[in-house]
Amino acid sequence: MTRDARVAGGAAEDKTTEYLLAPDDAAAVDAWWRAANYLAVGQIYLMGNALLKRPLAEEDIKPRLLGHWGTSPGQNFLYAHLNHQIIQRNLDMIYLSGPGHGGPSLVAASWLEGTYSEVYSHVGTDARGVDELCRQFSFPGGIPSHVAPETPGSIHEGGELGYVLSHAYGAAFDNPDLIAVAVIGDGEAETAPLATAWHSNKFLDPQVDGTVLPILHLNGYKIANPTIFDRIPRQELESLLVGYGHKPYFFEGGFDDEDITNTHRRFARLLAQVLDEVVDIRARAADGRLTERARWPMIVFRTPKGWTGPQEVDGLPVENSWRSHQVPMSAVRGNEEYTRLLESWMHSYRPEELFGPEGRIMDLVAQNNPVGTRRMSANPHANGGLLTRDLDLPDFRDYGVDVPVPGGATVEATRVLGGWVADVVDRNRQTFRVFGPDETHSNRLGAAVEAGGKAWQAELLDTDVDLSRTGRVMEVLSEHQVQGWLEGYLLTGRHGLLNSYEAFIHIIDSMFNQHAKWLDSSRDIPWRVPVPSLNYLLSSHVWRQDHNGFSHQDPGFLDVVMNKTADVTRIYLPPDANTLLSTFDHVLRTRNYVNVVVAGKQPGPQWLTMDEAVLHCTRGIGIWDWAGSEEPGSKPDVVLGCAGDVPTMEAIAAARLLRERLPELKVRVVNVVDLMRLQDEREHPHGLSHRDFDALFTADRPVIFAFHGYPSLVHQLTYRRTNHHNIHVRGFKEKGTTTTPFDMLMLNDLDRYRLVIDAIDRVGLAERESSLRQEMLDSRVRARQHTRKHGQDLPEVTQWVVQDGDNTQGSGAPGSDTGGDNE
Amino acid sequence: MTRDARVAGGAAEDKTTEYLLAPDDAAAVDAWWRAANYLAVGQIYLMGNALLKRPLAEEDIKPRLLGHWGTSPGQNFLYAHLNHQIIQRNLDMIYLSGPGHGGPSLVAASWLEGTYSEVYSHVGTDARGVDELCRQFSFPGGIPSHVAPETPGSIHEGGELGYVLSHAYGAAFDNPDLIAVAVIGDGEAETAPLATAWHSNKFLDPQVDGTVLPILHLNGYKIANPTIFDRIPRQELESLLVGYGHKPYFFEGGFDDEDITNTHRRFARLLAQVLDEVVDIRARAADGRLTERARWPMIVFRTPKGWTGPQEVDGLPVENSWRSHQVPMSAVRGNEEYTRLLESWMHSYRPEELFGPEGRIMDLVAQNNPVGTRRMSANPHANGGLLTRDLDLPDFRDYGVDVPVPGGATVEATRVLGGWVADVVDRNRQTFRVFGPDETHSNRLGAAVEAGGKAWQAELLDTDVDLSRTGRVMEVLSEHQVQGWLEGYLLTGRHGLLNSYEAFIHIIDSMFNQHAKWLDSSRDIPWRVPVPSLNYLLSSHVWRQDHNGFSHQDPGFLDVVMNKTADVTRIYLPPDANTLLSTFDHVLRTRNYVNVVVAGKQPGPQWLTMDEAVLHCTRGIGIWDWAGSEEPGSKPDVVLGCAGDVPTMEAIAAARLLRERLPELKVRVVNVVDLMRLQDEREHPHGLSHRDFDALFTADRPVIFAFHGYPSLVHQLTYRRTNHHNIHVRGFKEKGTTTTPFDMLMLNDLDRYRLVIDAIDRVGLAERESSLRQEMLDSRVRARQHTRKHGQDLPEVTQWVVQDGDNTQGSGAPGSDTGGDNE
Repeated sequence: MTRDARVAGGAAEDKTTEYLLAPDDAAAVDAWWRAANYLAVGQIYLMGNALLKRPLAEEDIKPRLLGHWGTSPGQNFLYAHLNHQIIQRNLDMIYLSGPGHGGPSLVAASWLEGTYSEVYSHVGTDARGVDELCRQFSFPGGIPSHVAPETPGSIHEGGELGYVLSHAYGAAFDNPDLIAVAVIGDGEAETAPLATAWHSNKFLDPQVDGTVLPILHLNGYKIANPTIFDRIPRQELESLLVGYGHKPYFFEGGFDDEDITNTHRRFARLLAQVLDEVVDIRARAADGRLTERARWPMIVFRTPKGWTGPQEVDGLPVENSWRSHQVPMSAVRGNEEYTRLLESWMHSYRPEELFGPEGRIMDLVAQNNPVGTRRMSANPHANGGLLTRDLDLPDFRDYGVDVPVPGGATVEATRVLGGWVADVVDRNRQTFRVFGPDETHSNRLGAAVEAGGKAWQAELLDTDVDLSRTGRVMEVLSEHQVQGWLEGYLLTGRHGLLNSYEAFIHIIDSMFNQHAKWLDSSRDIPWRVPVPSLNYLLSSHVWRQDHNGFSHQDPGFLDVVMNKTADVTRIYLPPDANTLLSTFDHVLRTRNYVNVVVAGKQPGPQWLTMDEAVLHCTRGIGIWDWAGSEEPGSKPDVVLGCAGDVPTMEAIAAARLLRERLPELKVRVVNVVDLMRLQDEREHPHGLSHRDFDALFTADRPVIFAFHGYPSLVHQLTYRRTNHHNIHVRGFKEKGTTTTPFDMLMLNDLDRYRLVIDAIDRVGLAERESSLRQEMLDSRVRARQHTRKHGQDLPEVTQWVVQDGDNTQGSGAPGSDTGGDNE
Repeated sequence: MTRDARVAGGAAEDKTTEYLLAPDDAAAVDAWWRAANYLAVGQIYLMGNALLKRPLAEEDIKPRLLGHWGTSPGQNFLYAHLNHQIIQRNLDMIYLSGPGHGGPSLVAASWLEGTYSEVYSHVGTDARGVDELCRQFSFPGGIPSHVAPETPGSIHEGGELGYVLSHAYGAAFDNPDLIAVAVIGDGEAETAPLATAWHSNKFLDPQVDGTVLPILHLNGYKIANPTIFDRIPRQELESLLVGYGHKPYFFEGGFDDEDITNTHRRFARLLAQVLDEVVDIRARAADGRLTERARWPMIVFRTPKGWTGPQEVDGLPVENSWRSHQVPMSAVRGNEEYTRLLESWMHSYRPEELFGPEGRIMDLVAQNNPVGTRRMSANPHANGGLLTRDLDLPDFRDYGVDVPVPGGATVEATRVLGGWVADVVDRNRQTFRVFGPDETHSNRLGAAVEAGGKAWQAELLDTDVDLSRTGRVMEVLSEHQVQGWLEGYLLTGRHGLLNSYEAFIHIIDSMFNQHAKWLDSSRDIPWRVPVPSLNYLLSSHVWRQDHNGFSHQDPGFLDVVMNKTADVTRIYLPPDANTLLSTFDHVLRTRNYVNVVVAGKQPGPQWLTMDEAVLHCTRGIGIWDWAGSEEPGSKPDVVLGCAGDVPTMEAIAAARLLRERLPELKVRVVNVVDLMRLQDEREHPHGLSHRDFDALFTADRPVIFAFHGYPSLVHQLTYRRTNHHNIHVRGFKEKGTTTTPFDMLMLNDLDRYRLVIDAIDRVGLAERESSLRQEMLDSRVRARQHTRKHGQDLPEVTQWVVQDGDNTQGSGAPGSDTGGDNE
């Protein structure tokens, strides 16, 4: 393989004038690169004497070496050259570091650019600052060893791998002037999310959106293995990247004794060519000359792992080997040979040319720094809260459902929400997008799809519906992809919502985890301005996944969310359309949260007028007098709690049965919209005091709680409550069979008849009311026999109304389900 | 695009003799296809009169239409042709249906082959059987609408998408005679896991392993959108697949009025050519002529979505559109026009040529069925328990650590395990593999890597270590990929373990969920023979992720696991090396479970001799007398519970402090290996009775429980215990900073000093022992100050031994951590 750039499909484009890196600029780029490399090594190894004012002593060296060298020099090289182009062209550019351990590199870059000292005054720009910069790195009380919220200029955690390209696209959407550089590790390229993220280029509009420049950093090794991408024939890799829709440019450097100035010149030329091509694509798109999908350029950047580091340690090759993934020499402290090796390694960067007598960087280095917000470490897009503007939200009250009496209307809640979301899309065409894994229409947000169109840059046919080059709804069959896009979109300061079937949201558990942790860490970083919340709408939920069978059912995402810090997580279970509208109006106004909203898409009874819904959502929890049978001034005998649309319906149905059949039993119905209200106020900011909780649930009466998710979650939330031993939860069980909606409820003991039996038993009337119990048990048998024979639920269930004389209206009876378009 | 087959890279290979489908065979293939299509429609729509003995009436039609038509006819076409080749060549082949909703297709196939009636006697081979076959499909009390454990011949759930190719490779490993056909949906192809699964071909050895034949079913649409793969230029798709390392063959059928016999002939020719090429590759591999990585053939099979279904419904196109994804006409019942359309659709398959007067299939159809275990629906590989043989396990006792006194040795537990695993690999070279996402060496299983080698078919360099064409350790940087491979390997009856950093295992939460549900469903299917368990080793756990920072830490996989049925889930937290060995010996002998084992890789103190370890693991929980200060015959004042290696160390250290400083306080230490022991015996088969639980933890004494994971999990497990209000758990909190091991513990209030304070407080001695409390608080401050200054923990912590005079030996002091090679 020649080290010259090769362009897919043959020769470089003729029209591109070759860019020549001037000698002065080459010297500056090289000095900047050496300085960054020097600081990367210093951060990993040193806790003092970072500028080598004296020979390294034992106490200068960290006792625990926890950083990673391997990826740093290559990334420093890229950063140096990107800086040069930013200066030349006044580019608006951000840098996303995909390889897990770019920490030393990106921290060094932001310090060299001065940003680090601006946001962390204790890490100055002088020698003491250099010492502190090195000491704090992966040190107790310091900063993580990977790129993190603490790193200026970053919107991408260097923890779990695979999301850098999706994040870069999310950043580029609706930012036409931005270039998001995504450096992809060749280990990272093996991950599943990264492997599909390449296809993002079918969703980026070269007129409305910005540019993503993927740079595949091919340095050959992972923790302990070579990478696939480095060990397939070059032609195969090229074919793959062309197949992903890109025009790849190949670069190699560092594998021979080429003069480094020449290496810089070659890369500068290639980078300039790539950026010229970007300009050309954008120009052609702007004036309509781009008639087919853009084939965006990208770079394959092949350099040795641990480039410029020690060639060998203990007789084993280190540079260009997995042995330089972490630290070339470990246990340096107290090892004289290693200490001298480290010293000469650091001297090889000629620090005397880089740092002045007071430790400040020399002009030669500074010359390669862009200024102000053109510095990638200070670009406001990477601190997106700076750019966030509130959404222009239509008044959700105008979209509500008329509910003459509780139960007096039947609608698909998410379809009602869709009408409002459509107008949110329409009013915020530069700052709001809807994301979904091919389920947006199925989840009844069709109005939003019609209003915004679905983004699509691939081939269009006459028969297509709602696809659009400038679509505002982002759909692809990958939860990872849409989650990654949305994260990038939010972290650069815009707004969005992600809708998914509840069952499949577990696919991005770990992405949620990492984003929640990012938000949580950001709260403690004063210069990070809060960004819009990550809003989930989970529909096609477990109680109406009846035709998809056992494998699809799992409400456990709520449990995953609960494990994250209360400071950033919110869970809402609006029981009907008006409460759903009110909830979403709220969550779209919040910052720095993850809001999870669970709501069904099937026709369901409506309970609250809009005014009642606003009040109920504001409280987050409340007694529904009309559903119970309490008398003023006396305590209830039993409380029926409920959270979730379907459990609420069953609790209300159970309350009605009790009202009719045991009128002397005083029943209270408590509905929960904001699940965190169940928690102690000391555990969650939304938590209720014990006094308030007891006022709702009593301190000593049995509580039968009908819950959307796994019962253990309610137990966990109410663990500290006075009455917690008397809270009996019915929720989702792991039961597998094909059912109808009511059969599904019976299978989980969450049906109205079972709740009635629970109430009877828990208040101690099991013996006295044995005939009523028997009747309830018989009702269940009858209901099941009916479904087994007819394939649908009993009319008395599907046509159930909350009270006689209800004027039920709308698009179907509660609990009916004629079809279902779950995937 | 011409409809003729095109081969990547130009002309078809000259040496291949063109296969000609004989007219009789073409008629049989076509009849079989029509029969399968007919039955697919029947399953979706009908609950009676499935053979159309009389005109369809309202009561014949299901009230809820919950199946999916779109993918079925294409898959039926493939199945019919694969059957023909199986018959011609006596192939050992299984079929994995990737598209989510192949249920009607695969159920029809297994019924046509007779397998269905063999395993489900109530679904006979006659007309009554056909009626029942149709009625039960996605019907209450019946079978799911997708491919499921209930479907004979399947090892792949048609639920969540993206895993079919990984599953197929898992099935093919170590099965040299098997061809695993993986039909990939073009929607599915957009998912992240599928996008990287193509690279599996770099890990399959053509000598030792079988063949995977990927067939990309390009039918153009998902739920509500076109697919990316169908809307990129054909050349781009070809480039992508070539880049993935395959030789793609393209086929198109059904888009014009070609005579169907010709379509069959064209596909038969292409399939024969592909299979010839497979034979050729295998032959060249066998005799050493294959000097480079095999470029396996694959097929791009482009047919209209909903092929042979209604062209239009209500004036809108349905065939070849997303509108045929689910059901071409919904709400058929009671709709006369739709009913007649359905009838004529079904008649278009000419059922009179397919089913005899008694409803049995005609000879023409049966002629295309392979016989016995050559039927893909009856292939034993797809019911892997049939082929499972016990592992030949070396006696783990021989690999144990000598522990003269508790705390009297220090080792890396997983390294000790690695020695035993190495010999398991060595003794079971056809039936056991180790899987890991580039972390096996880091997790200290290096001995297993050396013993087995790491599978690698891509380029090899002289400098590579342990890579091998026939490696037994499977490593790629994708948790999805290794999980998918292992699932396929297990479901075809072999054994394995997956090792991962604990923090990253959340990546496959949803894959775990689906596999656990598969196992759970399988338990209720008598003909499914239990398969080896899915065994996880989670190392680099949260308590020693100190250098990787906040983003990496999460012990919540245990919570995800706990939500699944007790019948299939097991969680073990062995506190040292000997208990880890004993645990792994056990889990590798089990069937149909998911076993999660959490164990650290850093040097840690050893507590139990091998005999004690075996006893302790057999009980799963027990009192450690030597660690406590009880007196015979009297109750303890306080119980220190512990689960997990690091929490155990802290609990023992706390017990020692209490013994020294408050000798009159009677402390009991209870260690838990098998976490499910904490549960009620009615909730989990491993659960303890209340009597046994109370005997360990007392019914009324305070319990301070030091736990590896989130505290809520222990509360959840012990919720029903007598003493549960008095169980106080210290576990993982969401706290972010960079720490040392002990700092990390203090940050989470799980350190020995905090536990001592907890014990003092909970037994009511806070006032009396205020000076001891103060001393403990001071110790924490001192410990933190030391780390902040020196970057490592206090010597009194790192060099702590359980009791004076301990003869601590081994590879480092407990709690020491000189490096760390976490990714």
